[in-house]
Amino acid sequence: MAEAPDAKGPRVERVALLGTGLIGASIGLALARDGIDVRGFDTDDRALARAVELGAVTTAAPDAAGAVDGVDAAVVAVPVGAIASLVVAAIDAGAPVVTDVGSVKAPVVAAVESLRPDAARRFVGGHPMAGSEQEGVEGATADMFVGATWVLTPTTTTDARAYTTARALVRRLGAEVVAASPDHHDILVALVSHVPQLAASTLMDVATSRESEHRTLLRLAAGGFRDMTRVASGQPGIWPDILAANRDAVLDALDGYVAALGTVRTLVERSDRDGLLALLERARAARRSLPASASVAGDLVELRIPVPDRPGVLAEVTTLASRLGVNVADVEIAHSIEGDAGVMVLVVAAADADRFESGLHERGYHTSRTVLS
Amino acid sequence: MAEAPDAKGPRVERVALLGTGLIGASIGLALARDGIDVRGFDTDDRALARAVELGAVTTAAPDAAGAVDGVDAAVVAVPVGAIASLVVAAIDAGAPVVTDVGSVKAPVVAAVESLRPDAARRFVGGHPMAGSEQEGVEGATADMFVGATWVLTPTTTTDARAYTTARALVRRLGAEVVAASPDHHDILVALVSHVPQLAASTLMDVATSRESEHRTLLRLAAGGFRDMTRVASGQPGIWPDILAANRDAVLDALDGYVAALGTVRTLVERSDRDGLLALLERARAARRSLPASASVAGDLVELRIPVPDRPGVLAEVTTLASRLGVNVADVEIAHSIEGDAGVMVLVVAAADADRFESGLHERGYHTSRTVLS
Repeated sequence: MAEAPDAKGPRVERVALLGTGLIGASIGLALARDGIDVRGFDTDDRALARAVELGAVTTAAPDAAGAVDGVDAAVVAVPVGAIASLVVAAIDAGAPVVTDVGSVKAPVVAAVESLRPDAARRFVGGHPMAGSEQEGVEGATADMFVGATWVLTPTTTTDARAYTTARALVRRLGAEVVAASPDHHDILVALVSHVPQLAASTLMDVATSRESEHRTLLRLAAGGFRDMTRVASGQPGIWPDILAANRDAVLDALDGYVAALGTVRTLVERSDRDGLLALLERARAARRSLPASASVAGDLVELRIPVPDRPGVLAEVTTLASRLGVNVADVEIAHSIEGDAGVMVLVVAAADADRFESGLHERGYHTSRTVLS
Repeated sequence: MAEAPDAKGPRVERVALLGTGLIGASIGLALARDGIDVRGFDTDDRALARAVELGAVTTAAPDAAGAVDGVDAAVVAVPVGAIASLVVAAIDAGAPVVTDVGSVKAPVVAAVESLRPDAARRFVGGHPMAGSEQEGVEGATADMFVGATWVLTPTTTTDARAYTTARALVRRLGAEVVAASPDHHDILVALVSHVPQLAASTLMDVATSRESEHRTLLRLAAGGFRDMTRVASGQPGIWPDILAANRDAVLDALDGYVAALGTVRTLVERSDRDGLLALLERARAARRSLPASASVAGDLVELRIPVPDRPGVLAEVTTLASRLGVNVADVEIAHSIEGDAGVMVLVVAAADADRFESGLHERGYHTSRTVLS
């Protein structure tokens, strides 16, 4: 079988940036620093002008279609409620690949697939797990995503080229890619982002509203309390949209949290030392297992996986890698010149290769391995 | 009225350190660095030997009484359940002033007052709002308390000399003193420390127990989640005692937290954007009002308050200062040579002086003010 792998990886020289707020402008700064031509648009003229001034946008466009003209990819960085229509606008204006940075994925992906069933394959949902308490373009930094995890949500309709382009873009920002289905992403962020945000804001609110002598209370708030409530100092404006879009997963996670607090209450009421210790020790073990960094370190291995050339395979293989905790340094689809078959080439950490191959074999894939120097 | 103020402040040249764990050894390191002779004792021989090795203890004593012999003050730094009996041992061995570092105060103070009603005036409850995820003597650092808030809990039985000595000791460690009654302290720490600890550990536990695909979940945990759950990585062993000792205040604060989460649930369920925004904005304002540091900055004013020489006045005036958020740089009791009256001299931030004087006048005190250069 002859192959024609694209050895240089997907070309990303010109990118449309739709939305120049905190996240959008940070992406723009990083891309521009990396020599990429950033065509920007924002409905807020002043934010756009400021993004140009700060170097987050190379050229300001008069509208979304103008920004998208001739680019290799478009990044939509607007509040959750406005994403789908802007993704569709970018697709309609001819963007070969579109990705976004919204905190909720299933409703966005579903809306795009429903609005443009034929072109949705050019869209890959995305969500950088990074940010800051700063607001807007003034808070943007080129290094915001270095070492951060960035979720991409390929589906059975996602085109392999769209995925590898979005992935290459994210990697150029310094982030590590985790692939998950849109639904799974939303359940996970309810647990690690949305409910924690509500828990922190509520904790802060309860502490101050229940205690009339605020000054003493606030002076007693040591490092632990400050750490716990830090996210409560962030911009509130983005949250109503996010919570509405991810309502069911948030309610489910919130119910789980409140139920667990009820169990803890019983342990405290009974002064059940063993029960309390067991909870605290379980939590400590889990907290200590949080990876310090998502980056791929050490020796690398190349796995080649002959696959039928259909997009569902891409989603299955990439989300499997993320589920198994396999660090993927690179993904490439090498199409066969004749026929529909192809080879998916994944570069992974050598330490993860056995685990990944076992998982692939269980799902009926064949693999061949090359150890990279 | 002739006065005989002790211009040099209370003498603290030799201190007994009973307990050489994380907090005790950190106190020892700071005191020893400051030239104080630290007489240490710990029931754990190895921890004591290591404290001597690291310089946290100048001289190891064979028992608590041996450590206390001839000191100006004793610091009890053992787990909450063991404090009261060791405070009594230190009092019985002749320590002129005893303080502790337990996370719960009302039961400790009550136990000491009940066990030694005549000598309890030599005891001042204390609680440094500082710590680390490290454990034991190996985690100790001399700078642990620099800039930290340290609660002292004088009561109507507390002797003025015991308070000013404990206060001077705490200030030499670099901490800022907040005075509160033992009960009020316990309510406050339930809100800013005990329930937050349970909330963080529960959040971490729920996230991992509800999500079988831990690897993906953990990789998605960004800075906000890490901040929120950081305290969950600390030593669990101290908590069952603390939670048992402060059970009622913890249950009350926990109930308030769960009730508030129930309100939030309703807001999410209804996608009540205005309600969610109001909560998040209230919490943000409160979080942003957390003082960056408790230290006294700027111009100082000396307030002289003629007071009847009875200990209750000390507790009332010092806790009033803390309740009003008045930064107190120094406290001194100048006794009159004839009669029972005295003058309490407080050095406070000039910006706080008006507020403090109003509060004192409301309570029937007279004040005179001197602006310090």
